[in-house]
Amino acid sequence: MNDHAPPEVLTEEELRATCLRLRNWGRWGPEDQRGTVNHVTPEMVVAASRLVRTGQSFSLAMPFDQNGPQTGRRGRHNPVHYMIQSGTDAHSGCQDADGLRYADDAVLMPTQCGTQWDALSHVFYDEHMYNGFDLRLVSSRGAERCGIEHVSDRMAGRGVLLDVAGHLGVAALEDGFPIRAALLEAVAEAQGTVVGAGDFLLVRTGQLGRCLDSGDWGTFAGGAAPGLAFDTLDWIQDRCLAAVCSDTFAIEVRPEATRTIRRPWHWVAIPNIGLSVGEIFVLDPLAEACRADGHFDFLFVAPPLPITGAVGSPVNPMALR
Amino acid sequence: MNDHAPPEVLTEEELRATCLRLRNWGRWGPEDQRGTVNHVTPEMVVAASRLVRTGQSFSLAMPFDQNGPQTGRRGRHNPVHYMIQSGTDAHSGCQDADGLRYADDAVLMPTQCGTQWDALSHVFYDEHMYNGFDLRLVSSRGAERCGIEHVSDRMAGRGVLLDVAGHLGVAALEDGFPIRAALLEAVAEAQGTVVGAGDFLLVRTGQLGRCLDSGDWGTFAGGAAPGLAFDTLDWIQDRCLAAVCSDTFAIEVRPEATRTIRRPWHWVAIPNIGLSVGEIFVLDPLAEACRADGHFDFLFVAPPLPITGAVGSPVNPMALR
Amino acid sequence: MNDHAPPEVLTEEELRATCLRLRNWGRWGPEDQRGTVNHVTPEMVVAASRLVRTGQSFSLAMPFDQNGPQTGRRGRHNPVHYMIQSGTDAHSGCQDADGLRYADDAVLMPTQCGTQWDALSHVFYDEHMYNGFDLRLVSSRGAERCGIEHVSDRMAGRGVLLDVAGHLGVAALEDGFPIRAALLEAVAEAQGTVVGAGDFLLVRTGQLGRCLDSGDWGTFAGGAAPGLAFDTLDWIQDRCLAAVCSDTFAIEVRPEATRTIRRPWHWVAIPNIGLSVGEIFVLDPLAEACRADGHFDFLFVAPPLPITGAVGSPVNPMALR
Amino acid sequence: MNDHAPPEVLTEEELRATCLRLRNWGRWGPEDQRGTVNHVTPEMVVAASRLVRTGQSFSLAMPFDQNGPQTGRRGRHNPVHYMIQSGTDAHSGCQDADGLRYADDAVLMPTQCGTQWDALSHVFYDEHMYNGFDLRLVSSRGAERCGIEHVSDRMAGRGVLLDVAGHLGVAALEDGFPIRAALLEAVAEAQGTVVGAGDFLLVRTGQLGRCLDSGDWGTFAGGAAPGLAFDTLDWIQDRCLAAVCSDTFAIEVRPEATRTIRRPWHWVAIPNIGLSVGEIFVLDPLAEACRADGHFDFLFVAPPLPITGAVGSPVNPMALR
Repeated sequence: MNDHAPPEVLTEEELRATCLRLRNWGRWGPEDQRGTVNHVTPEMVVAASRLVRTGQSFSLAMPFDQNGPQTGRRGRHNPVHYMIQSGTDAHSGCQDADGLRYADDAVLMPTQCGTQWDALSHVFYDEHMYNGFDLRLVSSRGAERCGIEHVSDRMAGRGVLLDVAGHLGVAALEDGFPIRAALLEAVAEAQGTVVGAGDFLLVRTGQLGRCLDSGDWGTFAGGAAPGLAFDTLDWIQDRCLAAVCSDTFAIEVRPEATRTIRRPWHWVAIPNIGLSVGEIFVLDPLAEACRADGHFDFLFVAPPLPITGAVGSPVNPMALR
Repeated sequence: MNDHAPPEVLTEEELRATCLRLRNWGRWGPEDQRGTVNHVTPEMVVAASRLVRTGQSFSLAMPFDQNGPQTGRRGRHNPVHYMIQSGTDAHSGCQDADGLRYADDAVLMPTQCGTQWDALSHVFYDEHMYNGFDLRLVSSRGAERCGIEHVSDRMAGRGVLLDVAGHLGVAALEDGFPIRAALLEAVAEAQGTVVGAGDFLLVRTGQLGRCLDSGDWGTFAGGAAPGLAFDTLDWIQDRCLAAVCSDTFAIEVRPEATRTIRRPWHWVAIPNIGLSVGEIFVLDPLAEACRADGHFDFLFVAPPLPITGAVGSPVNPMALR
Repeated sequence: MNDHAPPEVLTEEELRATCLRLRNWGRWGPEDQRGTVNHVTPEMVVAASRLVRTGQSFSLAMPFDQNGPQTGRRGRHNPVHYMIQSGTDAHSGCQDADGLRYADDAVLMPTQCGTQWDALSHVFYDEHMYNGFDLRLVSSRGAERCGIEHVSDRMAGRGVLLDVAGHLGVAALEDGFPIRAALLEAVAEAQGTVVGAGDFLLVRTGQLGRCLDSGDWGTFAGGAAPGLAFDTLDWIQDRCLAAVCSDTFAIEVRPEATRTIRRPWHWVAIPNIGLSVGEIFVLDPLAEACRADGHFDFLFVAPPLPITGAVGSPVNPMALR
Repeated sequence: MNDHAPPEVLTEEELRATCLRLRNWGRWGPEDQRGTVNHVTPEMVVAASRLVRTGQSFSLAMPFDQNGPQTGRRGRHNPVHYMIQSGTDAHSGCQDADGLRYADDAVLMPTQCGTQWDALSHVFYDEHMYNGFDLRLVSSRGAERCGIEHVSDRMAGRGVLLDVAGHLGVAALEDGFPIRAALLEAVAEAQGTVVGAGDFLLVRTGQLGRCLDSGDWGTFAGGAAPGLAFDTLDWIQDRCLAAVCSDTFAIEVRPEATRTIRRPWHWVAIPNIGLSVGEIFVLDPLAEACRADGHFDFLFVAPPLPITGAVGSPVNPMALR
């Protein structure tokens, strides 16, 4: 049942050829900073809204707190939450001169510490980001092109869940399990789900749920993981998907199908296709509801915070069904 | 046309009487941590989704960056954005051993620095927060009750815009202008808009737009502002609104109708009614679209980040119409 | 040779009696916010300066970075370092309009994340801090009394090292090893060191060096540790020490000699004696130099950052000998 | 008496020629990361310690808090101080299960937000930092060469104050006032102070004191300021100074003697001479004491925090006299 033999080796030439072949630079004009979310039309948004059948709403974000998956590796730590004013201050009389009893707080978070969108400025191809913008436009001052703010009003449309783990009858796919295009096809067919242009695809592996349930992150943060195989890129491009999201740290299978190149799927998806990628999405409760009534599509609204020049954003994606 | 005479004086007794009169403690059970968003039923969500008529989507968040309204007063500063890895690092060869060229970043933000939800743990009434929870449950460790995470899947439903500034034919209401219940009624009637149970009400004053356009925050951050008058509280409670949002710093009119009490409207709304309150919402473009076709209601989806124990959350609210 | 039998049990009554017996409240006036550093006279500073014999200088701070001992427990994380501008930005031409090529950075650190001073506002005795100030003066706004800034010019004088590990012939004392007053006496006598009024005492256990050498923090951050036994408090008070520092996380032995009370030594030392306490000091290289020439005293200068209202400060203590 | 005519114009060629002429690369070996603090010998430290005559100690740091000079410009903000635990938490019973009542806190600060050392990695000359290290070694990961940690044990020696404002009989020099080498000479002679090899020179303009006294930062943060003229660089190099510090934002006079080049003095001092530079030092109380007894030299101990890879450090410099 598990088809993951040792991953085939992908050479750098093959990788680069795929980058060039699937490249969408210029497709939406030379100044476009949005990429594949351009596939979504107003008509699609209207149609997606009609997928709200029962009024159930699902939050697909995991809690943002110190129990998150981050280890500090590569500078990614879990959110740090500080109180600026608290109920204990109020109780202690510290606000008596204020005329109001209140609490206030602040949070420090890597934009990619938890449930998140990658911006198109998050990954580069050689000297460029999506649409040919020079990568030096992403400096310590932030991203002057392709910052997350450019898609702040675009993350709404038809969401489609492909429940791979559910299809294979397991709680979670094994780490290292590659989800190939053919498997996505098979899942869609078994579910009776059509995946089409402008869709926001959510791929469920079960990995995040397994970690949350067990309280053990294991290799979640950047180590071995189930995920999309390299051959899904053509499939995604062919279908004109708006975005692809999953319940893993980095969407693609690890170990990857390359020897010296890290995250080859990202090389193609973000800077070349211009694909919006969502990671660490909580999909188990949604999947359960979908399985219960057989509807695997819904209205998906996942607005990133328009942090100016940010290369990603924490997000609380909503599935309304 | 402008009805703002010197504000009538509200005494502490009157304020406290209103608090008790409108109190919703126990209405949704002794353990409820959600308050008025409980007014929203699944049926209302379905109905709201049918308000998506043209597929236009509006992001109601202002940019999160150093140009925001905060002054550091009361510990609220504008967001600080740091890069963890950048395109210039990649260009400089610093990632050559990594096998991936990428950028990463982090943000430090008071939860109420920009467009935001107040959590029900944000404001206290004497020794309690909403539903009678002890305010000492909001300590330096965060809010053990009524944290923003408890409504993370509830901020979706029918949005209704009452364009007060537009109704009065001004770009922005004057600072200090009190929007009374009768005026909300008049605006609704003029717009042909029915405001009902479970609605997310957006009240447009024009103040935020005026500041953004002029590049001058003036007294925006906690000073004089147009906003809801005290008598709107009964109106809100009677209508069973899910939430009330506006394009000002703190929704209620300032100077307030009290001498020594700061933000009397908040005293009633948050800890007693259990009302979800949204502030610093960008409403001008949405209002323009509403005026253009005469539809002032839409699907509203404004998911807060489930920051565990947070007393508020930055948010990018979406209006789909 | 190792005298650490199961720790004798200290009752709360005994602890409280010691607190009252050693209490220095009012000793330096009702408004004093400095405590035992008042023992240091200008004459002592002059005399201490004459202990600089060879011109060797030792930095007693460990590196402030992500490799530190903190685990996030109780909100203490290791320092987070962000670049605001970098050499890669300069190299990439991002500063060409600036007329200057430079780097800039920022750091977020719990004040007690590494080598540090505790302020007298760090630990409370019931409802008070040192000198009887109300603990509610330490709110979310910081410490209105006894903040670290009040001793910013006082951390200079005669430093004395008692090398307990060296005396016992071990690289590091075992975790749980209690250093009793009699042992301090024995070490001082063996070293030929007189410990007197106004001295800054440094007690070496070897624990920090063991962790740094092995790259394994083990239980360092708040778990079992060698350290000062409860009976050293009388000894410290009798000798009118200015401060006591050590190469452990929290100076006192753990497990402690109490069942339900955490850090009983701190209860007495900080809020009652008003003792300045320094923790996580790097003492091994200094100890080696002291052993080499037999001089265990030196000029000690350890200025905290005057962070207004802070209850501690990171510090780079200097020993000049 | 005031000699500041319109500043002579310095051309880029002249600037570059000075850089090359005064360059110390290789002077202390190809791997040196410390620069001019190498001028300090152990004998000098011993001699400096004998300058402690009365036992007075001066903290030369300004308070680190929200009242500092920063405006957010170029990413430099004033320190943000957060409480992790507070006395109000303790008072409210939130720590009752802990067995200890305590407060804890954290601080976020640009390393150069207040009183500070510049590291030798702070300013670059074209593609290099001090000693010829490639500027790309200062990436988002921090400074791999010439980080502040390399001088953590070196900031101790003879301090010398040249009280320029005092010499000229003014409370503070006017903004734009250039302190030329000849004036430093004249001040030294008038004070009876010899400035020599390995000295830490403190130059008092009075600007910081004027701002602190008036509560008005004016142009302090990077605007017009009195300060060292370009011709002091030869004087500094000839005397083999260990470091130069002042009571201004950036030590050198502004507007500068160049048209398009910002901070020409820094171009020479940091990357070429390898000079340690201290800024925003509080010098008024020290100057008063020096004037009172005629001794303008003292023991100077100003240990930076060894923040790994930092390009500067906040510091609390001590003058013991």
